[in-house]
Amino acid sequence: MSQTADKSPNEMANVSLRDMANAIRALSMDAVQKANSGHPGMPMGMADIAAVLFSKFLRVDPSQPEWPNRDRFILSNGHGSMLQYAVMYLLGFPEMTIEEIENFRQLGSRTAGHPEYGHAAGIEATTGPLGQGISMAVGLALAERMLAARFGEDLVDHYTYVFCGDGCLMEGISHEAIDLAGHLKLNKLIVLFDDNHISIDGDIKLSTSIDQKERFAAHGWNVYEVDGHDPDAIERVIAEARHSDKPAFIACRTIIGFGAPNLEGTDKVHGNALGEAEVAATRKHLGWTAEPFVVPEPILGAWRAAAEKGKEARLAWEKKRDGADNKAAFEAQYATSLPRNLADLMAKARAEIVADQPKVATRKASEMALEVINGASEVTIGGSADLTPSNNTKTKGLSDVKPGDYAGRYVRYGIREHGMAAAMNGLALHGGFIPYGGTFMCFTDYARGAIRLSALMGVRVVYVMTHDSIGLGEDGPTHQPIEHLAIHRATPNLLLFRPADAVETNEAWEIALGEKKRPSVMALSRQGVPTVRSGDVSENRTRKGAYVLKDTDGARDLTILSTGTEVSIALEAADKLAAQGLKVAVVSMPCWALFEEQNAAYRKEVLGTAPRIAIEAAGRLGWDRWIGEDGRFIGMESFGASAPAPQLYEHFGITVDAVIKAAGEMVKS
Amino acid sequence: MSQTADKSPNEMANVSLRDMANAIRALSMDAVQKANSGHPGMPMGMADIAAVLFSKFLRVDPSQPEWPNRDRFILSNGHGSMLQYAVMYLLGFPEMTIEEIENFRQLGSRTAGHPEYGHAAGIEATTGPLGQGISMAVGLALAERMLAARFGEDLVDHYTYVFCGDGCLMEGISHEAIDLAGHLKLNKLIVLFDDNHISIDGDIKLSTSIDQKERFAAHGWNVYEVDGHDPDAIERVIAEARHSDKPAFIACRTIIGFGAPNLEGTDKVHGNALGEAEVAATRKHLGWTAEPFVVPEPILGAWRAAAEKGKEARLAWEKKRDGADNKAAFEAQYATSLPRNLADLMAKARAEIVADQPKVATRKASEMALEVINGASEVTIGGSADLTPSNNTKTKGLSDVKPGDYAGRYVRYGIREHGMAAAMNGLALHGGFIPYGGTFMCFTDYARGAIRLSALMGVRVVYVMTHDSIGLGEDGPTHQPIEHLAIHRATPNLLLFRPADAVETNEAWEIALGEKKRPSVMALSRQGVPTVRSGDVSENRTRKGAYVLKDTDGARDLTILSTGTEVSIALEAADKLAAQGLKVAVVSMPCWALFEEQNAAYRKEVLGTAPRIAIEAAGRLGWDRWIGEDGRFIGMESFGASAPAPQLYEHFGITVDAVIKAAGEMVKS
Repeated sequence: MSQTADKSPNEMANVSLRDMANAIRALSMDAVQKANSGHPGMPMGMADIAAVLFSKFLRVDPSQPEWPNRDRFILSNGHGSMLQYAVMYLLGFPEMTIEEIENFRQLGSRTAGHPEYGHAAGIEATTGPLGQGISMAVGLALAERMLAARFGEDLVDHYTYVFCGDGCLMEGISHEAIDLAGHLKLNKLIVLFDDNHISIDGDIKLSTSIDQKERFAAHGWNVYEVDGHDPDAIERVIAEARHSDKPAFIACRTIIGFGAPNLEGTDKVHGNALGEAEVAATRKHLGWTAEPFVVPEPILGAWRAAAEKGKEARLAWEKKRDGADNKAAFEAQYATSLPRNLADLMAKARAEIVADQPKVATRKASEMALEVINGASEVTIGGSADLTPSNNTKTKGLSDVKPGDYAGRYVRYGIREHGMAAAMNGLALHGGFIPYGGTFMCFTDYARGAIRLSALMGVRVVYVMTHDSIGLGEDGPTHQPIEHLAIHRATPNLLLFRPADAVETNEAWEIALGEKKRPSVMALSRQGVPTVRSGDVSENRTRKGAYVLKDTDGARDLTILSTGTEVSIALEAADKLAAQGLKVAVVSMPCWALFEEQNAAYRKEVLGTAPRIAIEAAGRLGWDRWIGEDGRFIGMESFGASAPAPQLYEHFGITVDAVIKAAGEMVKS
Repeated sequence: MSQTADKSPNEMANVSLRDMANAIRALSMDAVQKANSGHPGMPMGMADIAAVLFSKFLRVDPSQPEWPNRDRFILSNGHGSMLQYAVMYLLGFPEMTIEEIENFRQLGSRTAGHPEYGHAAGIEATTGPLGQGISMAVGLALAERMLAARFGEDLVDHYTYVFCGDGCLMEGISHEAIDLAGHLKLNKLIVLFDDNHISIDGDIKLSTSIDQKERFAAHGWNVYEVDGHDPDAIERVIAEARHSDKPAFIACRTIIGFGAPNLEGTDKVHGNALGEAEVAATRKHLGWTAEPFVVPEPILGAWRAAAEKGKEARLAWEKKRDGADNKAAFEAQYATSLPRNLADLMAKARAEIVADQPKVATRKASEMALEVINGASEVTIGGSADLTPSNNTKTKGLSDVKPGDYAGRYVRYGIREHGMAAAMNGLALHGGFIPYGGTFMCFTDYARGAIRLSALMGVRVVYVMTHDSIGLGEDGPTHQPIEHLAIHRATPNLLLFRPADAVETNEAWEIALGEKKRPSVMALSRQGVPTVRSGDVSENRTRKGAYVLKDTDGARDLTILSTGTEVSIALEAADKLAAQGLKVAVVSMPCWALFEEQNAAYRKEVLGTAPRIAIEAAGRLGWDRWIGEDGRFIGMESFGASAPAPQLYEHFGITVDAVIKAAGEMVKS
């Protein structure tokens, strides 16, 4: 190839797309060199593609980075974060200053090692764990189609562009994502594949022989290929892909580290600074004479001129919006506003439950809560990873989102737990929707990578995880979660709810919907449980995370702590112990994370000073914090087994009798 | 189609393959009906394929179910477990009695809801979590090729057959698995796809439009299709696939619940008992007059005759083996025997470390241990999910396993953490190898589904998980594990090792290799740590899980508990506190699970009665068990950040000073 600047005409006289691309290359190699840490290969390899995409196509406006109908750009190969930061600086995003570029990968900078959602407006998603970006992009592209179906293409008609590499496409999640996108015919999703043939271990021939184009075609995509260093060809292919009737996959043949004369095309340039000598050689090779972190004015000017087109697009869109009949409805939806009377409706539903005292599984109770929510609001979007009849996620009147028909509110995610979770992240990131989706609790394992990103990004996604213990029964240990409550409790910024009955389930849903910056996981039962709450339920008691469900008259002899389906066991044990003359309090702890946030006095009051027994049909890890060193834990010490649920509770000793026995050993009567 | 028996000739006069298949159907529907739980649709749909495969091709011998060169059969769509149990009973596997079939899904039976490895010889793997079976099969097929490369095709030349459904193929892990298998040209792997167009939610058109044949072709497989209810055609296609030069994918068009006249072909027959009326109607429809759990003698006889062919194959193979020059070497390898002097070699290496007192990252220490192990033994098989230079998993002299050349001992798993873990499960299940594989600790998230199966099956797989904390540094929070130590500690039957230095790393490896029934996860550092052990290292102190690394002279004032890279911080703090006149013990806790197995007296002795501080660069969950209610925990309360590691330790307060401050608050001097 030729490294000399290709002088095709541009907005600015004498500034070529290659010049614009070289600005990305220079900033990237210099920032990585200064940090002595980072990944120069991808930004240098994809710089030409970025220059074309951002200057010719992408509708973003640095002065209003969050206008609703902007194109979404996702850097799925997030290790190439310097490409995104460089482009944002060049376009003029105000938060992305040259100082930030100079502080690449330093504490407190906006320019983290991988793009972090929330660090700067314009970063649409946190990426880095490979495959997540392309999979979130499916959710973003779906959100666009769903909003367009509701408010018309005049108001919503943006593209979702993705950069990705071999790593993203080797990860299993990519299969789930592209299969879903192909099925749903998300034709405004355009993936640009950095086809550089190199991964960390070396040539990708070490580990794969796949034909990516044939693969994407099999998944229902239109496929294209292009020389990733030929700006004109790139422009032509993107223009064509924008009119695709299916999602579009563009394989861009690139050279990793393009421009580094001695290292380009090798794995050495993937994840290490080039070194001073090679940086100097690259400058010479590219004809880039500016000092580090300096972009010559004509080139910066060309980038800033490109940004002006985004501003014009934004202004034109705002004009359309302001003239639209459905402006108010659109804005309410896009703001993901919940109806003001939702709290009243939820409290009313709780009062009805208390009046009825139903014995229902908490998955059924979740459906009851969702009937209220989905009836009152248009922003919730349901779905399940092919367990709709088990997860109870589809309420009355919800119709399916279908290929080419996006008016529905229920997504058939297929047997794709990871893809579902990532798509929900995308739906939540887009604006306009609160997604919830179901599978069995045990299969949160499959979705872990994306659930963690929900928590790290702080997005409002609700995971409806049913069959939350050995209460699942006959399907056996592969389907019985033992460690999964601990997994979610260990995850920062994530709320795990394990409600005890239909009232707590309603409360958990109310809280989850109000948590704009945290995802929630609902641990719900297969088996029926009695209603344990009574009396006044106008106050949402789950909000404090744990509370005294059954108090004693006078000083406690014993406190039983529990969650979920075991709370009713605790209550029964407490009654039997009371008959023996013991004063036993029962504490329900539906959400540890919220309890940890209460003040010490409240926590102490709830836990009490009497001996404590915890009962939960799961592993012990974490319970010692609540039971203290002399406490007892009644739960699982191994994987489960295949049998009817009541037999399993007996077999594993999670019973009223076990509580009574432990109490007898702990408390001198 | 016609439901009448197809009277093609068989070993037994007048018994057709359809009759043999109907025996599977009858046993399956009756067992599910009796349990009132289970999945009749798949066994009834795939019964014809099973009858052909097991009677015409599969070399298994019920009288010696574990002979090394048997064909491996994996039921990846494990919910159809009754198919496997029915076939095993029909062939005459002694553990799979009719009583076991009658006790389907009952406590203590061998016939769990999903096939459970270890419940009966002949069940080659635990399946049920979708996609795991087909992915483990890749490891099994690779093990076969690797043994054949070492000992010749005379001794090792078996097939690996897989049944799978849409669920398995929609899961992301299937992408990783089939890409790896296609790349490695595992031509003795044959997948039979139950192409029934139905999933739990309904027609698969609800959620997918993929062309599976085109997909597999893109991944380097040969693809076939067949009517899954035409025994002759099935026989022809399997015969052809056995001579494929690539892994073979056979799409078998089937009708779910074939034979149930009112329910077949619908989602209603997937996961529920048919009901008494439909069972009766099916009997009539299939012309099956026998009572439940009775198989007419001619049909049972035909099945038993098929098993005789397996026995003949086994006897013929034993003759070859007994005449082979390399018999002893083969048997030692297949038994996965470790050299007798390994413990001595490991202790010698520890002594050298103590003499040298190196400051190395524990990932480097792991490589040092592996140099000893891989040099002494031929059974270890290394690999990495494209992080070889970071995981330090490739020791000197290990060559790559390549397409068509399986003599090497290092697998380039690609960017496929989940596929790697599942393939390692398969390698371990096969016999002959101890697999270990690396990625970043944070990406155990991606492999969770398969790691859990390692633990549930109890197989010897070693996960080499480097970059185990914020010590990873600049890559930032997406790559910094916070909750992952807790995740592994919460998982039953899994050993998490977080060694403090090169000595403990060596010890952890020695233990992991000796654990035949448990997987191990090594949590290893990116950053260097000093050697904390000195003196006599002939005893493996890690074996007890936790031990007093630095004791006090007289009663302790304080105990500091720690693991991994924070142990050296604990030691430094202890020294500074000692200078203030405090008697401070330091306890290293490299493996909680092993510590929990020690007797109470030892645990008490180690933990002591003095106030306790724990320091670990991870979340708190679980530590309260060791620090008690008045203890302090110094660690992470949130996700990490992107910055150089030393700054992160300061920023998050995981420092010597933090320990000293906490000690000052806890201990009255």
